[in-house]
Amino acid sequence: MKNCTGFNHLAEGKNVYIVDTTLRDGEQTAGVVFANNEKMYIAKLLDEIGVDQIEAGIPIMGGDEAEAIKTITKLGLKASIMGWNRASIKDLEASVNCGVDAVAISIPTSDIHIKYKLQSSREKVLESMVKAVEFAAKHGLYISANAEDASRSDEVFLVEFATAAKQAGANRLRYCDTVGILDPLEIHQRIKSLREKVDIDIEMHTHDDFGMASANAIAGLQAGARFIGVTVNGLGERAGNAALEEFVMALKYVLKKDITYNTSKLKETCEYVSHASGRVLPIWKAVVGANMFAHESGIHADGALKNPITYEVFDPMEIGLERQIVIGKHSGTAAIVKKYMEFGFVIDESVATHILTKVRTLAVNLKRPLFEKELMYLYEEVLKEQENQNAI
Amino acid sequence: MKNCTGFNHLAEGKNVYIVDTTLRDGEQTAGVVFANNEKMYIAKLLDEIGVDQIEAGIPIMGGDEAEAIKTITKLGLKASIMGWNRASIKDLEASVNCGVDAVAISIPTSDIHIKYKLQSSREKVLESMVKAVEFAAKHGLYISANAEDASRSDEVFLVEFATAAKQAGANRLRYCDTVGILDPLEIHQRIKSLREKVDIDIEMHTHDDFGMASANAIAGLQAGARFIGVTVNGLGERAGNAALEEFVMALKYVLKKDITYNTSKLKETCEYVSHASGRVLPIWKAVVGANMFAHESGIHADGALKNPITYEVFDPMEIGLERQIVIGKHSGTAAIVKKYMEFGFVIDESVATHILTKVRTLAVNLKRPLFEKELMYLYEEVLKEQENQNAI
Repeated sequence: MKNCTGFNHLAEGKNVYIVDTTLRDGEQTAGVVFANNEKMYIAKLLDEIGVDQIEAGIPIMGGDEAEAIKTITKLGLKASIMGWNRASIKDLEASVNCGVDAVAISIPTSDIHIKYKLQSSREKVLESMVKAVEFAAKHGLYISANAEDASRSDEVFLVEFATAAKQAGANRLRYCDTVGILDPLEIHQRIKSLREKVDIDIEMHTHDDFGMASANAIAGLQAGARFIGVTVNGLGERAGNAALEEFVMALKYVLKKDITYNTSKLKETCEYVSHASGRVLPIWKAVVGANMFAHESGIHADGALKNPITYEVFDPMEIGLERQIVIGKHSGTAAIVKKYMEFGFVIDESVATHILTKVRTLAVNLKRPLFEKELMYLYEEVLKEQENQNAI
Repeated sequence: MKNCTGFNHLAEGKNVYIVDTTLRDGEQTAGVVFANNEKMYIAKLLDEIGVDQIEAGIPIMGGDEAEAIKTITKLGLKASIMGWNRASIKDLEASVNCGVDAVAISIPTSDIHIKYKLQSSREKVLESMVKAVEFAAKHGLYISANAEDASRSDEVFLVEFATAAKQAGANRLRYCDTVGILDPLEIHQRIKSLREKVDIDIEMHTHDDFGMASANAIAGLQAGARFIGVTVNGLGERAGNAALEEFVMALKYVLKKDITYNTSKLKETCEYVSHASGRVLPIWKAVVGANMFAHESGIHADGALKNPITYEVFDPMEIGLERQIVIGKHSGTAAIVKKYMEFGFVIDESVATHILTKVRTLAVNLKRPLFEKELMYLYEEVLKEQENQNAI
């Protein structure tokens, strides 16, 4: 039996707690199924990064799902392990049986959801949540009271809901922007206002329907939400959730906070989840995409070659990526000179200009940048042309 | 010769102007080359959407690039056509020769870029910009003075730069978050402050290195930047730029503004640019991804079937997408009943529960949702089992 004082497996007094829900909201994505071994490995990777809480799945689903959660609770991870539940005693009993130390208890708070989905009332929502929280509290669990569709909920009711949940024993409120309808300024104002009205920790849970999930998570943090819900690669319902890798790196390099998270594990984790979820990581994926440190255009490549900080905010090595100077249509002579130097050839400006003309023509014809072998052939061509010129 | 009073091809007095730079910053992306025909078609699509200004390329590159820009200026589009230039008379002459009505004149304003890339000084930067702007103004062009790496620039110098550009004849300042280092709240504060100090229109140009480009564009708009730089699919250097489709839909559904942009053309445009750039659109792409309206999990599918507004902010038809109820590991009985109804079979709750158990087991084994054919086979299995049961 765990203690009932609150944080259980979570260190108290941190300024930010990362709640990763790759295994719940991530797997809930239409089309995604993780095998139980994959779930275990993802949980281990998240723990190596130092994620504070892992939402490991939905215990009431039973079968493989419950088995995976049980296994994860027994891995001896540092992270708190959370089970997801509807506001129902049956769901919570399943969570208790899985051995989690924390539960998320979810119920909608918007009239849209209450009317059309639950076909219920605000009163019944409050009642169900209070009963469920009290049951979980009795079992010494850390409790997140999830306000589903919080962003389309009446603010007065949301305050009532948060207050009732807190009184019943909830440790935090999960503010779900379920349909991803908020912008960062709006989130900042709402979370600030909510915190002024209820003394409860807030988790910001965002969705990417309009491409703002990660920025919305940051805005929530800035407004005082200490808990931030994320998934690896932003996997999640529809367009997904805030991305773990974007949040961690933004914390360090945008907000310039000291962080304890192990950034060297991000790329490996993103690649693993990419494979396990059957979703190829786009090369332009923020933070971990292969193109993050690829420079082709003359001005960018020239800058990056003179001093990488001109176009790079962090060292690619930090997350296991590499700087690439791509030779193509937009290249300039600086990159050409540098590239041939890598091949062992010192070429002067006039040869570089000559080669560059050929590079541009070829890149336009091929509709792509050039491979190194092609650059070698171009060099041979230019040398031959020069020999012929001299022979005349 | 066009008039020198300012907006030329741009309607005056709008609250927001979309500046699409798919053909410049988008094509500048390492590895991306558009054919000239593709550029022309992209420009036409952008014009059909109603984009206010199209940054069509870099005239000084000459050759095919200049040809494409010339062709686009002659298409008779409603949009203003802009050429991109360094702060150099030679570049601007090339723009004039291409027949554009607007120019972006770019030079870095951060000490990092001035020192390491330009190896120059703030004074020389000001001087080059003023000379270039004066030259462009004499030619009656609409002028954007681009402050490259504005987000890492000294604010006092940025004010000086904007003031000088304005006095020389620039119509707006492009505030470039070149390395994508800002968060929305910071952008809001900075743009607000800049507008209080200089009376010049501002264009917000953002990058997605930390996944915040689209949200940052929205924050810029909220702070008073009337011009917003975007690209289709968020194509652009490294992780890319703010995405046109995300910005347009957020304008309508997040900020709830009346818009004149033709949202029915967004998907076609995104798909075309996806093909032309050789970058497959991820199914989870915000706004236009195939998964935007795919519901699998029991709770979501149940809600969406009862009333789509529970989990959808806009009608998928608006942009030519379809609602999909995916049958897989996370499905509930409501979706099963509905799915078989589509096949022409009315099944009761107990059969649905029976089928659901089989669906879950199979989806876990296969690590994917089920195809319709598989669901038909499962139905046959269940019927046979029931017959056998009855025979016993």
